Amino acid sequence: VSAIHRAAIFAVGSELLTPSRVDTNSLFITEQLNLLGIDVVLKLVVGDDRDELARAFRLARERVSLVVFSGGLGPTDDDVTREVVAGVLGRPLAEDEGITAALRARFLARGFPPPMPENNRRQAMVPAGARVITNANGSAPGLWIDDAANVTVLLPGPPRELKPMLTALVSGPLKERFAGAALVRRVLRIAGRIESQTDEALEPLYRGWEKSTPPVSATILAALGQIELDLSVRTESRAEADRMLAAASSEVEAVLGEDVFTTRGETLEQVVGELLVARGLRIALAESCTGGLVTSRLTDVPGSSRYLVESVVTYSNESKTANLGVDPALIATYGAVSDQVARAMAAGVRQRARVEVGVGVTGIAGPDGGSAEKPVGTVVVAVDMPHEVHSRTFRFIGERQQVKFQASQSALDMLRRMLRRGT
Amino acid sequence: VSAIHRAAIFAVGSELLTPSRVDTNSLFITEQLNLLGIDVVLKLVVGDDRDELARAFRLARERVSLVVFSGGLGPTDDDVTREVVAGVLGRPLAEDEGITAALRARFLARGFPPPMPENNRRQAMVPAGARVITNANGSAPGLWIDDAANVTVLLPGPPRELKPMLTALVSGPLKERFAGAALVRRVLRIAGRIESQTDEALEPLYRGWEKSTPPVSATILAALGQIELDLSVRTESRAEADRMLAAASSEVEAVLGEDVFTTRGETLEQVVGELLVARGLRIALAESCTGGLVTSRLTDVPGSSRYLVESVVTYSNESKTANLGVDPALIATYGAVSDQVARAMAAGVRQRARVEVGVGVTGIAGPDGGSAEKPVGTVVVAVDMPHEVHSRTFRFIGERQQVKFQASQSALDMLRRMLRRGT
Repeated sequence: VSAIHRAAIFAVGSELLTPSRVDTNSLFITEQLNLLGIDVVLKLVVGDDRDELARAFRLARERVSLVVFSGGLGPTDDDVTREVVAGVLGRPLAEDEGITAALRARFLARGFPPPMPENNRRQAMVPAGARVITNANGSAPGLWIDDAANVTVLLPGPPRELKPMLTALVSGPLKERFAGAALVRRVLRIAGRIESQTDEALEPLYRGWEKSTPPVSATILAALGQIELDLSVRTESRAEADRMLAAASSEVEAVLGEDVFTTRGETLEQVVGELLVARGLRIALAESCTGGLVTSRLTDVPGSSRYLVESVVTYSNESKTANLGVDPALIATYGAVSDQVARAMAAGVRQRARVEVGVGVTGIAGPDGGSAEKPVGTVVVAVDMPHEVHSRTFRFIGERQQVKFQASQSALDMLRRMLRRGT
Repeated sequence: VSAIHRAAIFAVGSELLTPSRVDTNSLFITEQLNLLGIDVVLKLVVGDDRDELARAFRLARERVSLVVFSGGLGPTDDDVTREVVAGVLGRPLAEDEGITAALRARFLARGFPPPMPENNRRQAMVPAGARVITNANGSAPGLWIDDAANVTVLLPGPPRELKPMLTALVSGPLKERFAGAALVRRVLRIAGRIESQTDEALEPLYRGWEKSTPPVSATILAALGQIELDLSVRTESRAEADRMLAAASSEVEAVLGEDVFTTRGETLEQVVGELLVARGLRIALAESCTGGLVTSRLTDVPGSSRYLVESVVTYSNESKTANLGVDPALIATYGAVSDQVARAMAAGVRQRARVEVGVGVTGIAGPDGGSAEKPVGTVVVAVDMPHEVHSRTFRFIGERQQVKFQASQSALDMLRRMLRRGT
């Protein structure tokens, strides 16, 4: 097995240190590096600050064999990546006349009158011994600097410039320099369990996977309404990786049963859609507290018009009666948030739309409307199918949007389990 | 002017080094630290790797006076933040019996049978001299460690746990320890324009703001269906900052007019909700291609039941006719995606729900269903109000979920403009 190469990714730009902007280039860079089996072990976001950038770059170089920068290659004084990297590596910058000529031509071609602004010539400065990477979609060329121990790659920040440049590197010089065993991933998702219990249940599997050749790595992560288990294998053979990940997935399913809703990275709404198609069933929904979110998630799936016929969002008691035929006496006796009303909503929308599956969701999303008996976060879901009617009350914690999301997740998961059992 | 304190933010977790997951906690953390005038100068993402985390933490401590960690406080072996920080700071870990007792109580309260899994006790380990930060929404308590030169804060990764804990710190110990000239921000949002034109139109304002005392900084950012303009001022006086930002916001509104939909960081659905309340109008929606997304966004706003009465998602032609009274001849003549059908949907749902405002949305979200005349991304929105009916055809670019989101954004923005004009 070849050595595992390790990489660090820098995103440079003071705008990435404000409350409104997040670095997303690193996701694409990670995906591309993983294709060559390169592990990303560190990501850093640094402002347009020479001193901070130099210190962080020195630390990263000690730890990895590849450093990829995005951003900070523009023409202004704020753009410091080129100078800082050249300084740390002790390689003097010199103007590349070829780049300057190309920049002038680009300016003319875009209809700007000469002379080109002087500050654009900063983009033609190249550290001694660096290889220039052509940028087909912008003015800043990229740079590749190969020392004995490290490779440093500088790419511009705009994604449509960065992406083709990196893709070219991955199929060319990066592959030649670093190609190893690819890191192949698989995402499993689990509903209806809590993280610590799931982790404990899977502990014996982890120990087995660690000892296998090649080992299977696992990372567990709790998200709102679901748990994600990421499995990965590093191997030269894609077929071997797929075989090992399929076997590991089966082991997880043997332990967790139908709580595993996907072993192929699907969303819950995709899984529910596939089950509806497989069983030839159509669905209609009556939503109250979720305000259309369950339907919106179901319709995020391409082709969902094959099974989703219609939905009604009934945001008042009158609307539940007028649209779904919910008996006002039921609401008066049991309250709008009750098994009885959820079931009547599910039956009502099913009948009205003339479909096989009806869903009713009613609850208190908050922040107001809770009581001692039915606090904010109380949600009742009912599913009405040909041979089975099921309703369940949940108590969710969190703010309005989190209650809405968890309610939608639980409604979809109830549907999934009932559709799987195939009554 | 007091010293400007500098902070570094760590996001810990190997899942954040995969191609599918980005750290977003740092945005909220940055916003909160900025309130106290603390500058974020470095953000790092590190995997569940003791050695990498320790090295990066040591580097960061040399550079800043505050380090905030999110993540890595869970109950499993993968959760290394607590141990690494204790190790670097030379503070031995000891079990806090109070935390263990609270964890056991939490398990029982959530209905899990005892005994609590042993690994949860790791969450009760506290470094010597650390202050424990209560977590109302999860099992992992936070930690606050104050050395002479640095403060280190450890928070759990899930946003709904982290956010209230950090908010409490910002109004308490963080404020006492670090308060300086606050960086006061204001977020303006703009619809119906493209970024480069907007930026060009605002150029003269930027130049004036740079020269003011204190200067107003501006960052422009294009997002799907809207442009965000972030303004900030650093000053000791909150009143002065508010005055300057209000003046700058007015200048922007003078240039961009009603395209500015908020100068106070609101969402479009909040603005629409406020206009409906102010005008005493109730609304009902008929959604096709957006699949309930417009309604779901409107119901994300607390109190939306005051104006939102009901919605219908009609995902088939038959459903449009049966539920909204859309004449099948209209669909046959003009197609389901047409001004005529959108208007009939808006009028139909308005009449059916007996409200003052009806909205109809019909379109082709893709990937299938497009034609040469009506390609994927074609969406028609109609708004039916007492003295005005308006419909408009849009062509959106992007994948299914992006088309859905842009369509919801345009529907809300049409509503906003009509409600503002007050016909």
